[in-house]
Amino acid sequence: MRVLGLDPGLTTTGYGIVERAGGRIRLLAAGALRTSTEAAPAERLADLRTGVLALIGEHKPAAVATERLFFNRNARTAISVGQASGVLTAAASEAGLSVTEYGPLEVKKAVTGVGSAPKSQVQAMVAAVLGLSTAPKPADAADACALAICHLQSAGLSQALSKAVNR
Amino acid sequence: MRVLGLDPGLTTTGYGIVERAGGRIRLLAAGALRTSTEAAPAERLADLRTGVLALIGEHKPAAVATERLFFNRNARTAISVGQASGVLTAAASEAGLSVTEYGPLEVKKAVTGVGSAPKSQVQAMVAAVLGLSTAPKPADAADACALAICHLQSAGLSQALSKAVNR
Repeated sequence: MRVLGLDPGLTTTGYGIVERAGGRIRLLAAGALRTSTEAAPAERLADLRTGVLALIGEHKPAAVATERLFFNRNARTAISVGQASGVLTAAASEAGLSVTEYGPLEVKKAVTGVGSAPKSQVQAMVAAVLGLSTAPKPADAADACALAICHLQSAGLSQALSKAVNR
Repeated sequence: MRVLGLDPGLTTTGYGIVERAGGRIRLLAAGALRTSTEAAPAERLADLRTGVLALIGEHKPAAVATERLFFNRNARTAISVGQASGVLTAAASEAGLSVTEYGPLEVKKAVTGVGSAPKSQVQAMVAAVLGLSTAPKPADAADACALAICHLQSAGLSQALSKAVNR
């Protein structure tokens, strides 16, 4: 199963495409979709859509994992993050992919085993799970990989449970 | 000039298409794009995109006017309103339309002359400006018409200023 993790932002949207092959999880691509701060917000949102559709077309993931948003941060960022999230989510849905949201605690717990893990530990575990010497850069890309890993683990658990119940 | 006003929401997005013809402003269409509360959020966002592109294709507006968001309201609604706003804005931009945001005070002032006007007065003035006996329904459609009227008035002012400066 191949999963596209997305950490939405208007200026920088982190992405990571990870795959479970055999017993291992490997990284196919990671990076950031960036939009120009000189362009109008509407254009930047349209650029994000173009960017994510290109990623989906190139890597053909089966699912998208993204951040569940909570608006307890800076109000101006919250608005643009929400707008970016909407654009990315709608594009993934149109491309036929399921979109699952995970909260920060779920992601930390899935990746490190501890919901209260500091960011540095999450990054170190992302590198370890993917068999890399350091986490993908920028930090948004590593966060996106953590989301994708979280989804693979949840999906694995769902499958195992389903098999156990149907045995 | 023909303007599409949009009052974004995940469940209900109000729209109004108004046109300045001669000295008058007239209403071409008003209503709401609605999405099913039973569908997944990602599907609902994709449905909003389809809906607004259909409106743009049918009525061929030259510009979009939409609400400037401020996240001082219910956090759960704020997230979905932001996501809906992002989808609508990106779709309009891809269709080649300019997108201008107006805050609630600007809209009230443009429509009623008073930034502190109550909602009922805004609705009454929307009806009066459009030559209707009552404001378009639902309320989100009337709000969308107010946004479009605000844009026509701003655009008219900009043109007049530009003519005065270039005289």
